[in-house]
Amino acid sequence: MVARHSQNPIITISDIKPSRPDFEILGVFNAGTATYKGKRILLVRVAEKPVQSDPQKVPVPIFNPIRKKTEILFLDQNDSSYNFSDPRVIHCKQGQNYLTSISHIRYAESEDGIHFRVADEPLIAAFDEYTAFGVEDARITQMGDDYYVNFSAASEYGIVTRLLRTKDFASFQDLGNIFHPDNKDVTIFPEKINGLYYALHRPSTSEYGAPNLWIADSPDLVHWGNNRVAATVRPNQWDNGRIGASCVPFLTEKGWLEIYHGATKENRYCLGAMLLKADEPWKVLARSERPVLEPEMPYELNGFFGNVVFSCGLLANGRQLDIYYGASDDSVCLASVPVQEIWDLLGV
Amino acid sequence: MVARHSQNPIITISDIKPSRPDFEILGVFNAGTATYKGKRILLVRVAEKPVQSDPQKVPVPIFNPIRKKTEILFLDQNDSSYNFSDPRVIHCKQGQNYLTSISHIRYAESEDGIHFRVADEPLIAAFDEYTAFGVEDARITQMGDDYYVNFSAASEYGIVTRLLRTKDFASFQDLGNIFHPDNKDVTIFPEKINGLYYALHRPSTSEYGAPNLWIADSPDLVHWGNNRVAATVRPNQWDNGRIGASCVPFLTEKGWLEIYHGATKENRYCLGAMLLKADEPWKVLARSERPVLEPEMPYELNGFFGNVVFSCGLLANGRQLDIYYGASDDSVCLASVPVQEIWDLLGV
Repeated sequence: MVARHSQNPIITISDIKPSRPDFEILGVFNAGTATYKGKRILLVRVAEKPVQSDPQKVPVPIFNPIRKKTEILFLDQNDSSYNFSDPRVIHCKQGQNYLTSISHIRYAESEDGIHFRVADEPLIAAFDEYTAFGVEDARITQMGDDYYVNFSAASEYGIVTRLLRTKDFASFQDLGNIFHPDNKDVTIFPEKINGLYYALHRPSTSEYGAPNLWIADSPDLVHWGNNRVAATVRPNQWDNGRIGASCVPFLTEKGWLEIYHGATKENRYCLGAMLLKADEPWKVLARSERPVLEPEMPYELNGFFGNVVFSCGLLANGRQLDIYYGASDDSVCLASVPVQEIWDLLGV
Repeated sequence: MVARHSQNPIITISDIKPSRPDFEILGVFNAGTATYKGKRILLVRVAEKPVQSDPQKVPVPIFNPIRKKTEILFLDQNDSSYNFSDPRVIHCKQGQNYLTSISHIRYAESEDGIHFRVADEPLIAAFDEYTAFGVEDARITQMGDDYYVNFSAASEYGIVTRLLRTKDFASFQDLGNIFHPDNKDVTIFPEKINGLYYALHRPSTSEYGAPNLWIADSPDLVHWGNNRVAATVRPNQWDNGRIGASCVPFLTEKGWLEIYHGATKENRYCLGAMLLKADEPWKVLARSERPVLEPEMPYELNGFFGNVVFSCGLLANGRQLDIYYGASDDSVCLASVPVQEIWDLLGV
């Protein structure tokens, strides 16, 4: 059985100091994870928005890459060309869509994996024209002393995946936009397979395709090709609307285990499991019919965007997986599951 | 002045034999070009559709990658979940969109660049799950004896760009899907710049961005990274709706000259010019305010999809550019323009 931690949620917005006094925290969620210097670390996503003083003026925070600061655009609440019904995105019929909030990545560390000290300042925040709407959903892949941190970057140019490399979570080397828009939910495999790096990725298409899970390979982690579909949405199941990688895949005796996310068309997000062939990771050997984790607890059902469990990372703890996950785009939670339970779900 | 050839259109549907007896030709257009064995060749796009016998049943041609043949799906003309108003795409409110036709690439060659013999059989047609809705808009980049042919591949998984290599336009080496969905209008630069290959590409985004022109680099032509915006749509101009690369860029004494296409939001397609910095091709030095070529002639204004001039290739002829272009998604035309005219348009 999946065991949610009794102290869930383990990080909430009350633990987070806004990055500036005129902002308020909307959520802390979707954390990538790794072990570093013997500690468990999380790179948590913090979503903020400007405190709204005039109910007629909806503030939209956007980083200005020329002035190198986040500025606030005000939209008229009564302007009928905007649709304010989605708490996450402001849709505009004939023009630019905007996010209601701007996200950044913050560093947190813990000795026990449960009690985390979250830094007061952002670690990775909007810094250029591709990140102007924010930096979201970091994943961490460790290879030797190097930690590769990839995240979704949103801007007026769409959603791209950016890759950074660090040894100390203090200084970062920029490896560029590794996937063009729209692409998010990228997880990089932690070792080469037959001489190539691999990543799962999730393009969004505008005309024909559904949001499916793709795989690409790379000689150097910077340049990616051989784009192929690894898994598709499944009609009439819990993952009929969209799927994407969640946790960084890890090698087991049966193949690569990927904890992925799937959502219905009504945006109910669950976590599932997928087993990929060890030496041909584009081949799915098994996929869970039922979710590994689905929104059931009050903090998973209600929040900034309810009915969501979404993970960006797990850590293996012996034969148990500690899955850190975002609940309702609002808080960080922990659930543990024996690997054997996953094998049972997968029927392998 | 741009001089349209007096024999335009130089290839029309009457020159094309359908690939099977139950299909009819909708258009021959958007041809990539190169010189090969002293001849000018075109890789023309041929769009076909099944002859419709029952007006109530709309036939949709789709390649079946398992049975390795193109099959015909019939949609009910009276099914209100489908919108049949666009001659190119059948939109479905809650499900899969389809193309009304299926395209393939055919080989054509000519001694004089005007009179082309078009092969009776397809050269590159749908062959796998990524090309199931067809193969469109080939571009040819020559490097030494190698010809790199990239094209848009459409399927239920979206639109990807596929790359093939050939020396003889008979046998091809498959270099995979170099850009994930949605991406089309890719042109590969004909030489390395500071040790890397470059390509212009055109992602389509689903949420925020407009269809802009991007650039990526590659160590090997298979794997691509460092995705960056090179140029964006321009509000209130002829290219306010979408832009993308058209012809393969070529190096001049002033930098890389790119003949690109732009369309209004109302789908009026023109060709324009852009000058990119020789050693930093992601930097646009100049861009034409007015189009190089715009739909004016009857064959450009009317056809399968009217009000369109669209190019996939040009050949330099001394100081003159011979631009092969598709008119109204219907026929292949030729227009010639002195390079000096382009410099004048660009103000360089």
